[in-house]
Amino acid sequence: VTNGPVFKLHGKGLLESLWPYFGQVSVIKIGDGERFKNQATLSRIYDGLFRARADRGSWILAFGGGVVGDIAGYAAATFMRGIRYASIPTTLLAQVDSSVGGKVAINCAQGKNLIGAFHQPAAVLSDTTILKTLPSRELASGLYEVVKCGAIASASLIRYLRRNLDAILCCESKQISHIVTEAARIKAGVVAADEREAHMRMILNFGHTLGHALETATSYRQFKHGEAVAWGMIAAAEFSGLRRAETELLAGLIHSIERLPALRGISPDAVWKALLLDKKSQKGKTRWVLLRRLGEAEIREDSDTETMRGLINDFLAREQEHSWAMAPSKIK
Amino acid sequence: VTNGPVFKLHGKGLLESLWPYFGQVSVIKIGDGERFKNQATLSRIYDGLFRARADRGSWILAFGGGVVGDIAGYAAATFMRGIRYASIPTTLLAQVDSSVGGKVAINCAQGKNLIGAFHQPAAVLSDTTILKTLPSRELASGLYEVVKCGAIASASLIRYLRRNLDAILCCESKQISHIVTEAARIKAGVVAADEREAHMRMILNFGHTLGHALETATSYRQFKHGEAVAWGMIAAAEFSGLRRAETELLAGLIHSIERLPALRGISPDAVWKALLLDKKSQKGKTRWVLLRRLGEAEIREDSDTETMRGLINDFLAREQEHSWAMAPSKIK
Repeated sequence: VTNGPVFKLHGKGLLESLWPYFGQVSVIKIGDGERFKNQATLSRIYDGLFRARADRGSWILAFGGGVVGDIAGYAAATFMRGIRYASIPTTLLAQVDSSVGGKVAINCAQGKNLIGAFHQPAAVLSDTTILKTLPSRELASGLYEVVKCGAIASASLIRYLRRNLDAILCCESKQISHIVTEAARIKAGVVAADEREAHMRMILNFGHTLGHALETATSYRQFKHGEAVAWGMIAAAEFSGLRRAETELLAGLIHSIERLPALRGISPDAVWKALLLDKKSQKGKTRWVLLRRLGEAEIREDSDTETMRGLINDFLAREQEHSWAMAPSKIK
Repeated sequence: VTNGPVFKLHGKGLLESLWPYFGQVSVIKIGDGERFKNQATLSRIYDGLFRARADRGSWILAFGGGVVGDIAGYAAATFMRGIRYASIPTTLLAQVDSSVGGKVAINCAQGKNLIGAFHQPAAVLSDTTILKTLPSRELASGLYEVVKCGAIASASLIRYLRRNLDAILCCESKQISHIVTEAARIKAGVVAADEREAHMRMILNFGHTLGHALETATSYRQFKHGEAVAWGMIAAAEFSGLRRAETELLAGLIHSIERLPALRGISPDAVWKALLLDKKSQKGKTRWVLLRRLGEAEIREDSDTETMRGLINDFLAREQEHSWAMAPSKIK
């Protein structure tokens, strides 16, 4: 399962690699972009599987970014009650985040990833040389998730990113392999301890509570996922009450990766409403992942709702005011 | 999640029982019958859950027969990556078969249960007094699955059925409770040892290889599921080479439960084609669950395909000839 642009760039090479081991494989192409991660595309994948006479012993290969991985993985989770799949993620974001951990899903009218399952891939193959063809904004989106892994579990990864940022932004093989490996290792460790997100896995949502709300409040048009999470991390680090040097190290690193789309024009009420609707809010409470220190996360269930709302309003007001002084960001 | 007829008969009582513990519950009604176990109905259930503001802490109650249990369970398996559900099966078939074991699914154009998951219910509540309102053909359909449990795992259950058949057909409380408990116990034991159907769970498919093929070959119009399985068990017992007394005990028990719809007019080629397409056939081989003796099943992977095809042709020819002498069965 792949999409047009990825298959055009790298499809021939993949099929040639697979041929000696698997012979002829069937290719199912889906639309490129988050808006295709829906029921209609899922039905097309099922149809492709039936046409290829797939059975319970068949494998799905997900070859593409996070959208391909999520929907192909969900097809694998549900086709004939679950068949095996392997991921070959072609974006940095997918290599460090969505391909690891077994969360698979589709979107529906009510929100992102609301229909899904937990279904672990049998293998994840990350080829870092493929990342050289990524647009810089895509590369940045993945780097924010690497920053997140460092923030919640490894201050040394944050320092490595800070020291090697230029080489990483040029996709130097040694540095990019190091951070992909470290991020995948951190995420796999957290997931192995708590696959079903009973508790500890939630620390992977650092920056995501506000991040998701920003995406929803802007109808997914203003931010890439990683960019929304980047803003969410800056806010959550602030709410955590870290030492000033740590907050500045984290925010400075994030801002030096790539210019983030500004928060201008986003209504705090719309953000708050989206936040309460998010599936991570249970029984009206919102749960926050905060930092005890850089490299160590904690889950707070007891945050006073009105206090948090005030903090978010203040954060948005300040960043919005600040952004008036900056050049308008490119909005895709 | 329920359907119209079940809710009309028993809905008020259920809501009154739930009220003291859960307060107001939301009712999602779906169409009555196998043809509603599809993607469109699933989407309606998701919509109902969103309207009810269900979150990851919510429960689904499946209140109805096998169709309600399968699709409501599948909705629970996939809504927000899995929420809890409990089953209150209202048919004998659902009480002894589909509500136990965590297999949940929907149908698609290509066949039955081809999209699904394994998702165990948190509880199954079987009220045997509800069975008194079942039509006799529905009751019989469930009894064939009880016979199956006996055939694969308990000769004493077969003898109990034989001795107490009149009381059971009248839904006498003591006898019906005994067989529901025994069948659920046998199935739960098999599933606990092999949830994902790696091997041993397949013995629950005794009678199902041919049964499913009969259903497919007749476009699901001629047989209820249990009736097709009943024919499948008679055939599979014969293919097993049991002692004559055992074959006759099993076939005699099945035939004395209720008149089975005849096999007349079914093309052996259509049956064979359906059998090869079934998801239980892997890499062109068909697997058969046969009996070593009454009460003990075995899985045979090595059956010669042409021999099996010949046995099926002979079985169909003999039963079809026999049925010419019988009154036409009621076809729904």
